[in-house]
Amino acid sequence: MNDQPKAGFLDRTLANLRRTWREIAGDDDLTAAADLGPDLPDEDMERLRRQMVACLESRGGEVTARARAAALGRAYLGLSTKGRERFLAVLADDFDVDPEAVLQAMERVRQAGDPETATAARENLRRALVAPRVRLLTQFNALPEGVKFLVDMRAELLRLARKNRGGLAGLEGDIRELLASWFDVGFLELQRITWESPAALLEKLIAYEAVHAIRSWQDLKNRLDSDRRCFAFFHPRMRNEPLIFVEVALVDGLAGNVQALLDENAPVTDPRRADTAIFYSISNAQKGLAGISFGNFLIKRVVDELAREFKNLKTFSTLSPIPGFRAWLEGALAEGEPGLFKPAERKALAAAAQRRGPKGTLKAVLARPDWHRDEALAEALRAPLLRLCARFLGREKREGSKALDPVAHFHLTNGARIERINWLGDTSAKGIEQSAGMMVNYLYKLDDIDANHEAYTGRGEIAVSGAVKGLLKG
Amino acid sequence: MNDQPKAGFLDRTLANLRRTWREIAGDDDLTAAADLGPDLPDEDMERLRRQMVACLESRGGEVTARARAAALGRAYLGLSTKGRERFLAVLADDFDVDPEAVLQAMERVRQAGDPETATAARENLRRALVAPRVRLLTQFNALPEGVKFLVDMRAELLRLARKNRGGLAGLEGDIRELLASWFDVGFLELQRITWESPAALLEKLIAYEAVHAIRSWQDLKNRLDSDRRCFAFFHPRMRNEPLIFVEVALVDGLAGNVQALLDENAPVTDPRRADTAIFYSISNAQKGLAGISFGNFLIKRVVDELAREFKNLKTFSTLSPIPGFRAWLEGALAEGEPGLFKPAERKALAAAAQRRGPKGTLKAVLARPDWHRDEALAEALRAPLLRLCARFLGREKREGSKALDPVAHFHLTNGARIERINWLGDTSAKGIEQSAGMMVNYLYKLDDIDANHEAYTGRGEIAVSGAVKGLLKG
Amino acid sequence: MNDQPKAGFLDRTLANLRRTWREIAGDDDLTAAADLGPDLPDEDMERLRRQMVACLESRGGEVTARARAAALGRAYLGLSTKGRERFLAVLADDFDVDPEAVLQAMERVRQAGDPETATAARENLRRALVAPRVRLLTQFNALPEGVKFLVDMRAELLRLARKNRGGLAGLEGDIRELLASWFDVGFLELQRITWESPAALLEKLIAYEAVHAIRSWQDLKNRLDSDRRCFAFFHPRMRNEPLIFVEVALVDGLAGNVQALLDENAPVTDPRRADTAIFYSISNAQKGLAGISFGNFLIKRVVDELAREFKNLKTFSTLSPIPGFRAWLEGALAEGEPGLFKPAERKALAAAAQRRGPKGTLKAVLARPDWHRDEALAEALRAPLLRLCARFLGREKREGSKALDPVAHFHLTNGARIERINWLGDTSAKGIEQSAGMMVNYLYKLDDIDANHEAYTGRGEIAVSGAVKGLLKG
Amino acid sequence: MNDQPKAGFLDRTLANLRRTWREIAGDDDLTAAADLGPDLPDEDMERLRRQMVACLESRGGEVTARARAAALGRAYLGLSTKGRERFLAVLADDFDVDPEAVLQAMERVRQAGDPETATAARENLRRALVAPRVRLLTQFNALPEGVKFLVDMRAELLRLARKNRGGLAGLEGDIRELLASWFDVGFLELQRITWESPAALLEKLIAYEAVHAIRSWQDLKNRLDSDRRCFAFFHPRMRNEPLIFVEVALVDGLAGNVQALLDENAPVTDPRRADTAIFYSISNAQKGLAGISFGNFLIKRVVDELAREFKNLKTFSTLSPIPGFRAWLEGALAEGEPGLFKPAERKALAAAAQRRGPKGTLKAVLARPDWHRDEALAEALRAPLLRLCARFLGREKREGSKALDPVAHFHLTNGARIERINWLGDTSAKGIEQSAGMMVNYLYKLDDIDANHEAYTGRGEIAVSGAVKGLLKG
Repeated sequence: MNDQPKAGFLDRTLANLRRTWREIAGDDDLTAAADLGPDLPDEDMERLRRQMVACLESRGGEVTARARAAALGRAYLGLSTKGRERFLAVLADDFDVDPEAVLQAMERVRQAGDPETATAARENLRRALVAPRVRLLTQFNALPEGVKFLVDMRAELLRLARKNRGGLAGLEGDIRELLASWFDVGFLELQRITWESPAALLEKLIAYEAVHAIRSWQDLKNRLDSDRRCFAFFHPRMRNEPLIFVEVALVDGLAGNVQALLDENAPVTDPRRADTAIFYSISNAQKGLAGISFGNFLIKRVVDELAREFKNLKTFSTLSPIPGFRAWLEGALAEGEPGLFKPAERKALAAAAQRRGPKGTLKAVLARPDWHRDEALAEALRAPLLRLCARFLGREKREGSKALDPVAHFHLTNGARIERINWLGDTSAKGIEQSAGMMVNYLYKLDDIDANHEAYTGRGEIAVSGAVKGLLKG
Repeated sequence: MNDQPKAGFLDRTLANLRRTWREIAGDDDLTAAADLGPDLPDEDMERLRRQMVACLESRGGEVTARARAAALGRAYLGLSTKGRERFLAVLADDFDVDPEAVLQAMERVRQAGDPETATAARENLRRALVAPRVRLLTQFNALPEGVKFLVDMRAELLRLARKNRGGLAGLEGDIRELLASWFDVGFLELQRITWESPAALLEKLIAYEAVHAIRSWQDLKNRLDSDRRCFAFFHPRMRNEPLIFVEVALVDGLAGNVQALLDENAPVTDPRRADTAIFYSISNAQKGLAGISFGNFLIKRVVDELAREFKNLKTFSTLSPIPGFRAWLEGALAEGEPGLFKPAERKALAAAAQRRGPKGTLKAVLARPDWHRDEALAEALRAPLLRLCARFLGREKREGSKALDPVAHFHLTNGARIERINWLGDTSAKGIEQSAGMMVNYLYKLDDIDANHEAYTGRGEIAVSGAVKGLLKG
Repeated sequence: MNDQPKAGFLDRTLANLRRTWREIAGDDDLTAAADLGPDLPDEDMERLRRQMVACLESRGGEVTARARAAALGRAYLGLSTKGRERFLAVLADDFDVDPEAVLQAMERVRQAGDPETATAARENLRRALVAPRVRLLTQFNALPEGVKFLVDMRAELLRLARKNRGGLAGLEGDIRELLASWFDVGFLELQRITWESPAALLEKLIAYEAVHAIRSWQDLKNRLDSDRRCFAFFHPRMRNEPLIFVEVALVDGLAGNVQALLDENAPVTDPRRADTAIFYSISNAQKGLAGISFGNFLIKRVVDELAREFKNLKTFSTLSPIPGFRAWLEGALAEGEPGLFKPAERKALAAAAQRRGPKGTLKAVLARPDWHRDEALAEALRAPLLRLCARFLGREKREGSKALDPVAHFHLTNGARIERINWLGDTSAKGIEQSAGMMVNYLYKLDDIDANHEAYTGRGEIAVSGAVKGLLKG
Repeated sequence: MNDQPKAGFLDRTLANLRRTWREIAGDDDLTAAADLGPDLPDEDMERLRRQMVACLESRGGEVTARARAAALGRAYLGLSTKGRERFLAVLADDFDVDPEAVLQAMERVRQAGDPETATAARENLRRALVAPRVRLLTQFNALPEGVKFLVDMRAELLRLARKNRGGLAGLEGDIRELLASWFDVGFLELQRITWESPAALLEKLIAYEAVHAIRSWQDLKNRLDSDRRCFAFFHPRMRNEPLIFVEVALVDGLAGNVQALLDENAPVTDPRRADTAIFYSISNAQKGLAGISFGNFLIKRVVDELAREFKNLKTFSTLSPIPGFRAWLEGALAEGEPGLFKPAERKALAAAAQRRGPKGTLKAVLARPDWHRDEALAEALRAPLLRLCARFLGREKREGSKALDPVAHFHLTNGARIERINWLGDTSAKGIEQSAGMMVNYLYKLDDIDANHEAYTGRGEIAVSGAVKGLLKG
């Protein structure tokens, strides 16, 4: 890292900012960096750029440069939203790859004669393609929470990107690449989370849980009871921040209802007798790590841990939401596809609906938030919705070969198969809203995982159980 | 990392190795990988390549690919020296950058119109310049000691490179870049090492100490006594392996003699009363991290730690060897430079030497291993050698601006200054041999470090104390 | 302990229970011990006694005896309340000191001639005075939570003692003595409790807090914020159970109002600038350790910790409840002591009360739960109640020399002085009820603690500040 | 503990030492305690007594008293051997039980009427039988290493007791009783010791090993290798001091030769395949805990640990020295017992001895330190010595029923049986000297342990294997 050539680009574009060390030390010292105006007004921009250049040049030595970068990082944290955006823009615009330098480096590759020269030229070209700011981003690691700093900076960039897909994308990509290297799964530590874990950590589970909201500390305690397991990945430099976590219930037989699983009054069972591990919630905790995926590793590691601890476990399965079902169904209904809903079904539904009120179409019935509490209605919906859901999960695709439902896509990529669709498995408002109250079990059968993965990623084939096959044919 | 496009190169060169997953699973499973012949005979080479391709293609999913890579890593560890060399050659030759793909990607950069397309084309070119093997190297991180694995693999490559600077250099460079990212100083943990540390760790200090060999556990215990400190950097994934360590004595005034410092019978002093911290040994412990330097950070962090613990400390200095002095002196004498040795000095030396035997030239005298025990001889040598040593350290350069002595170059780059040259500071056989028994103190004065660094790295100016200036003028 | 002579008592009283080892092993093994009926019916009593005898005789060796005792302990835990009472009665009645053996041992003391014989005879007498059950109580320590087991057993005995002061007192005393030895303050570990502490521990703070109830996890988090400290004593064999804990606020100047201290919306201040540490809550957590006091040690240790961490702290004081005030006042009013309430005060109070309703006596006014919200009433009560409270705390005694108020007695014994009485310092329902809303600061001035303690414990002199002296004279 | 009545004894015997608190504070403060003359001259004795009285009276409160006791403890540590002896004499003589108070308390027991009064009187008598110094001994626990302090004080007393069995025995007994309570096995923590353990701890193993001296760090490392285990008991308040430790080898079949076990060049075997655990060394590490035995618990716990970790283990056995054999044999030979040595054996030995020199008696041959290297001699000795050793271990008793050999007594008490006597199992100088080079295996067969223990402790029956029975008959 030390012998990286100082980019010629800096010399050219920032020559006018340069003074001797003595001059600069007079007014641009580390403390000054912390005194930037909250909104980063124009008069502070030049000072900011000078500090950045000093970091990139390792002025005063690498130790000093890191201290300077840390001061810059602290200054960034002190800025307003607007100030941060301007700070990021400086990094994005002024410290990007130099296109002209790239062209020159390309020319040397083209003219290289012997293999050794060619290799050196390509290496030189590769370096020219790395933006100078990458060095500064790395130096931010000198902050006590340097890794979290970059993760959060990327989260900010992703947020900004949504409203204004502009020049920040390159910067975001640079951080992404850095983080992908630093968060290589080999560095992550799997930890079990229990009621003995620090409250400060448990509080984060409550905040980050994305599938079935944790309603209270009592609810959380119930999810950490002796017949439950919770595991998370941590990074050694972000000790108090889970990256991703999974909640597991140890039960007898495939669980099909999440309200039953989360019932605080249900008796605690002996986990050593359980034959099935149900993964009922997986949540990513860091927005700034979007697209750097550990979910597959987490599931595999937890399966290993559980299999080691509990010799009786035979089945590893999820109990998963089906977030895309209702939206897809509305669309399909709107398109008026003929075979979607069988005449007999339509009739039965209308009959059941009539007893309560006039409108008996599928759309109208599902629009009532409490339809599932009406036994006749629910019974009339059961068969057609299970069939449609099987079709949605097992047949509907996006981008040619990917399952349309994102959760399905995740588990199918991991090599799981669609095992069972559970009628009224989630009767929370969200469950009724998203998936007409249905949930699905994805089964992880260790012997089939590799083949399932290859079939799905290679040929778009989705593995399903016999029961689901039956629904698909129905 | 997941969405990295599978290099077209693989498709072309390895098409003939490909079969369907089922076929391959039959004979190339993970266990088979461990059954390679120790010398990696030709018949195993194709299997090896196929396994590597399967890793790069993440066949069976990323989790499976990692497990496969781990099996490959274990297979490598089981090979003979010859087998390892052949294994590395496969990585170096068959999974290098594809020059043709680079040329195609360059063409797209050249033809790119709008900025966005240009950015994408450059990004694409950068990826084409990354050798496919880098992905496999990363996957080795799945080994329980994956980081140490790569560090040792690079050490092996550096050893091989010395006898045969061939195609392995590219591979070595790829590992170096990976390690430079993973061993960013922000990830390192400073730990104090004491007599309470695990014996398994202390044993490594004994093995790795490179400056003043540790003769016994008793010698080591003495170096970890209450008036001593020892600190090391560790990587979170190499918990039991120090990367670099420094030994410090807390004393009164600049220490000038290393035998006195290491005397096991010397009384233990109260470190809270010490005014000076003497860094008397710094050793790099991992050959595979050559060129990835932490020494400057280590010194800075230890100075901070010590200053916090001991409020009385005023001076931070090294007591360092001068490994290059005698070699340089021999050379200078051979060249017969006239002013090197003053006539009066020559006469005095001859007189002192005469009493014992005939030969009284500087070269002849220094060739006697025990000259320093002869008081008259030592006295006659004292003034001229101190002067010559000052010149060697303060004036002699290589590559234009770097101090000729490597230890001097390290500390001067860190911003230290040459404070004092100590006559007969190291009378061990090694000390007499390397530097005619002299040692030097490099002083770290916090206020001057940045300026010293800039003066040295920018203009080749070497900072020296008044006393050393006097010697230089003498 | 091994060579303790087997008490002759056992031989006599339990001879009829004895069989050879082989016979007993047939029906009285460890597993059987766990099969006692929940209410410990008569038919199980003999088996129980036999097991206890086997423990006391170390039948099968000491290791086996401990395993047997552990089985007995588990059996006890499985009993109903009634069963436990019968279990304890067996221990209390059948394994008590043997009075006849004591008389015999006394006789040997009387007849002892030379000093050595006399010493041995006294030692023998001392052993005869130790109930055999003490050995069994010690053996319960073999349970994984053996210490907690005994603590809880004593809590049960104290509960039973309240309804039926019978033969259980001796057993309770034996456990007390054992625990007093095991819980010697030298064995206790002071730990800081923070929001990083395990939720399972924090949950216990919520349960055990005895002074100002913790209303929610948010309330608790606020009490563990950066300007607060919480410390507890732990025993090495009861890692997850605090024995006693104290909550401290770091503030500027003496705090006088606990609602202000506990306000979750109050801004967090910089603790390094605080000049005063307010101990606002001390709670004993283990009923079974009643009478084995660590409070004085806890306060002293925490004062030391805080003084070390925060150099600006000048004042260490409590903000304490006055639990006995209202009860004492009611009594004094009932007795109709003439000078208690001055005529002018009575008149002013009547006038203030009149505006709201008829009854204007002190008793009637204080009976209204919201009198403190009526400014006029509160103003009329302020001077007389402060004076009466000063008298209650500073003058009223029990058992001749002890302060009547238990909290006052605790802090005065520790060497604190009564510093300030705070008007409306606790306007919670409990505060109004117990102490007419007043709170008191006990000041710990390190230089005076020993003298204050001696004056109080030796001569019953209560240390008070000038301000409180003023109230006492008023 | 707080409400313990202050012994009237103190009032009487120390009244002349008493002054008011103020007076004493003037010249006897804590610092002064540390200023005692090294030999504790007469002029310091009164000050010492006064400080002790102040501790016992908890002058200044219990916290202050503890601080004062700690100062006394530090003063003790600063004394010379002579000074310590005088310090202990003060404790032993001036703070012993008051015989007159005992007589008075006995009188009250005699006159007690109803049961409640009788119980209280006995309780009062028991307290009168506790020496006042016990309170001070307990207060020493306030020292940072208070427990170790008392352990070492008792070691000192045991050393002194050997040369002068005087009044110190009572003090020693008091400490013993305190330590027996504090070191109850329920408080001890079993820890595995490995090469990863702190060097400061391993150094103590080297120092404390009492059976087969550890010759070097390399020897120690070999004993901690993967096919070995070392476990120790620790007390929570003496973290860095092992109390007792055991070394175990995991092997195939009963090991019979300790030199083979300790051979540093022997290959490391796979412990998971071992069927036998050999306990080849058990050492007590704390002289001050003599007579407070944990050895039986340690063996049982380690057997449990090993059985859990290694499923293949079938046999748990020692390989033990026979320290008393040669001494007993010399005695038996001196007594000239006729059947000891058979005529044929005598003849064979004489013949074998003749080849080397004149003297062929058993005594003369064994006096040669290298007899075991002469094959003919060794062969001639083999049968008779094995038989005599079997007799020594299996028949010879002391105190009626205890095995004469102390190691045998320990293991037989634990319920082991004598399994095999190994010819030339320890050919070290010590082994030849103590036991004519023989070693013995004591077998721990879990099912028989209780019965063996009962038979041995109850009826003096020693369990032996069939093979040893054969030797006994031979």
